[in-house]
Amino acid sequence: MASQPPNGPNGQSLDRSNLIRFSSRLKEGRALALDVWTIFSAVNLPADCINLGQGYMNFAPPKWVTEAAEVALHDVAPNHYSHPRGRIRLREAIKSFYGPQFNRELDVESEILVTSGANEGQYSVFTAFLEHGDEVIMFEPFFDQYLPSVTFNGGKPVYVPLHPPKDSVKKPTSDDWTIDVEELRRAISPRTKMIIVNTPHNPVGKVFTKSELESIATIAEEFNLLVMADEVYDCLVFDGKEHVRIANLPGMWDRTVTVGSAGKAFAATGWRIGWLIAPKSIIQPTLAASTRIVFCTNSPLQEAAASGLEQAKERKFFEIQRAEYEERRKILCDVFDELGLKYTLPEGSYFILLDISRVDFPEDYPFPESVLGRGRDFRACWFIATEVGVSSIPVSEFYCEEHANIGEAYARFAFCKDVDTLRAAAKRFQQLKRYIA
Amino acid sequence: MASQPPNGPNGQSLDRSNLIRFSSRLKEGRALALDVWTIFSAVNLPADCINLGQGYMNFAPPKWVTEAAEVALHDVAPNHYSHPRGRIRLREAIKSFYGPQFNRELDVESEILVTSGANEGQYSVFTAFLEHGDEVIMFEPFFDQYLPSVTFNGGKPVYVPLHPPKDSVKKPTSDDWTIDVEELRRAISPRTKMIIVNTPHNPVGKVFTKSELESIATIAEEFNLLVMADEVYDCLVFDGKEHVRIANLPGMWDRTVTVGSAGKAFAATGWRIGWLIAPKSIIQPTLAASTRIVFCTNSPLQEAAASGLEQAKERKFFEIQRAEYEERRKILCDVFDELGLKYTLPEGSYFILLDISRVDFPEDYPFPESVLGRGRDFRACWFIATEVGVSSIPVSEFYCEEHANIGEAYARFAFCKDVDTLRAAAKRFQQLKRYIA
Repeated sequence: MASQPPNGPNGQSLDRSNLIRFSSRLKEGRALALDVWTIFSAVNLPADCINLGQGYMNFAPPKWVTEAAEVALHDVAPNHYSHPRGRIRLREAIKSFYGPQFNRELDVESEILVTSGANEGQYSVFTAFLEHGDEVIMFEPFFDQYLPSVTFNGGKPVYVPLHPPKDSVKKPTSDDWTIDVEELRRAISPRTKMIIVNTPHNPVGKVFTKSELESIATIAEEFNLLVMADEVYDCLVFDGKEHVRIANLPGMWDRTVTVGSAGKAFAATGWRIGWLIAPKSIIQPTLAASTRIVFCTNSPLQEAAASGLEQAKERKFFEIQRAEYEERRKILCDVFDELGLKYTLPEGSYFILLDISRVDFPEDYPFPESVLGRGRDFRACWFIATEVGVSSIPVSEFYCEEHANIGEAYARFAFCKDVDTLRAAAKRFQQLKRYIA
Repeated sequence: MASQPPNGPNGQSLDRSNLIRFSSRLKEGRALALDVWTIFSAVNLPADCINLGQGYMNFAPPKWVTEAAEVALHDVAPNHYSHPRGRIRLREAIKSFYGPQFNRELDVESEILVTSGANEGQYSVFTAFLEHGDEVIMFEPFFDQYLPSVTFNGGKPVYVPLHPPKDSVKKPTSDDWTIDVEELRRAISPRTKMIIVNTPHNPVGKVFTKSELESIATIAEEFNLLVMADEVYDCLVFDGKEHVRIANLPGMWDRTVTVGSAGKAFAATGWRIGWLIAPKSIIQPTLAASTRIVFCTNSPLQEAAASGLEQAKERKFFEIQRAEYEERRKILCDVFDELGLKYTLPEGSYFILLDISRVDFPEDYPFPESVLGRGRDFRACWFIATEVGVSSIPVSEFYCEEHANIGEAYARFAFCKDVDTLRAAAKRFQQLKRYIA
């Protein structure tokens, strides 16, 4: 037997008798690094810290949505395996709800795939389409799961920045984060296979304009790229802004997979119900991947998600929810305005990027090991969480190492919390005043 | 741009404008083949066919288990993201329930991982540990998901047969399916990384003996192999037979990951709640993989699974359930005995292998395309499903192509169905009499 060099999960040397070497794929894509969610999780922060870090709601999904899950739990079939494509009731509900938005009669047998959260859906697309060495373009800042999901499947991430608002812009919105189409074009190589377009965007809140999407579409067509349109925040677009789906642009349906999420739509991030909408040529290989990765998605909560989509229109649920989120957003914006701190007004999603350049924390503050040696934003977020009592997520985590410095200027605050919590956070922010340079 | 050769999901030529080539990994491991579950699914069989094919129950999980999911749905936190390791309540319940079975105090922070079904747990182990070209030994017949799960992660399956009962054995039990330790040893190469031990075994029902497991353990230690102990049927071991856990053999804890399933334990295959129990050196890399693949497992049904494990002992749930399954098993065994057909009496799991060699169906029967060109067992199962009205799964599907002929002698019948259904099936089997050679 060829002996294997000892190597434990943390790179430490292990006794040979105790060594089963983990895959080298874990060394890529930050898979074993202490992630930002753990560093800034509730257990590591003061007990009374208000959590505006991770993007989950502190309220429950609507009762009329959860009811269907309760009914399912009392039944037989919805407690057992669903078809790997998803339960037919949910696929029919997706067809009815989204069909008109895509201007097409979606085929429930070949153009819709229910997945175990949007995350697993995206992972399955990478598994289904990436060849070793294939390049995937993502705009920075990017949802941090993209990176290891791509590298685990043999892909290579290629980063194209969203350019932050110019200093001269006094009240920037997410529209002031811009793409440079020529920069995107220069990022294309013969190995480019896919481009991820996340709109509304996490963490920037940017809702890509039709003209921006047209530029991306032109390049996707020219270089024959698959487009992953991560639109999990599609029901959270504010101020009457139009959410354009890149799949609807001329010629784009055939090369686009659009990603949706029941967790974001119905305040149920723990249900792990997502879906993909795409032509058969994309759904079929992705189904083959997803069937092997998870076999199928949990059944009772698919029933609930279906029930939600079935009733949403009549109940004007998304219109009401949007207004509620606009109110939540306003609470944070108002206090940032009051403090004279710059932030990006998000036109979509439930995140606000606060410019923390002027937050002047003492460099000798007792920071833990985990935030030292990371970007300035890690220290700023730690300081705000422990001194002010409101947690957030440092944005350099959403950049590749080379470009982390761009993200260092920002902290991401989630406003998917109830009004009382946000008001309490706003009150606490007053304490930040004396640390503003 | 280098042009890519046109290639659609079925290998057909596609117009270049419409071609996004899927990954070559889908060409391995039968990932795009029409799978046996689809061929023998209810939609393809007569409407009144009794389904003893796929292994899910036609009864609901116990009310005292589902209740906890209902409570969770009315709460806030259990509708949102769980920790990627799993909800602490479920990890604590796993620790309490399984700890004594492993004779150790399990560490909920590093030795237990909740996964989105046992399937995703196994997939994550492969992702975490396989290097391109690493070999994984599996005993044939094997649970069909192993094959693509291994190849998707760059691994190469290596098959070692369980030898069927000798013809001279008049009333074979699953114990008469045997391993040849020297054959196993010959299958080891310098690239062997892992061995999968599925006990109780699907589809054979074999409960590996302590002596068999000791032989496997010796080889695992000698060649420094990771052992995946797929024990999802651990609560279904009959006739007082002892279920030995390979992780408990001397020296084996450090190299073994044991797989469990709430779906099998609580008649809830659609909940997608599974778990892994292993040392930190195995759980940590697997957590890194699982966190990226699914992020976390659905929350409300984790609460239910926890509640099930918490109460099982006091309610003597598994003892009662075992007796119920023994009764179910007997109904099928009795009718097979009556017909004079040979079968393997399973000592575990909920499957019976029926020897169909003597079922003499007309070769000119109107078989669909999907079963022609496959093993004789595909035609036999189709014939029994359509003529007799009871569906099953052809066992050649659980063998690699080279050894499919061994499986052709068997059909797998699932007895995870209520007594009335099994009695109705037994009645229908009377019609098989005139087709027995």
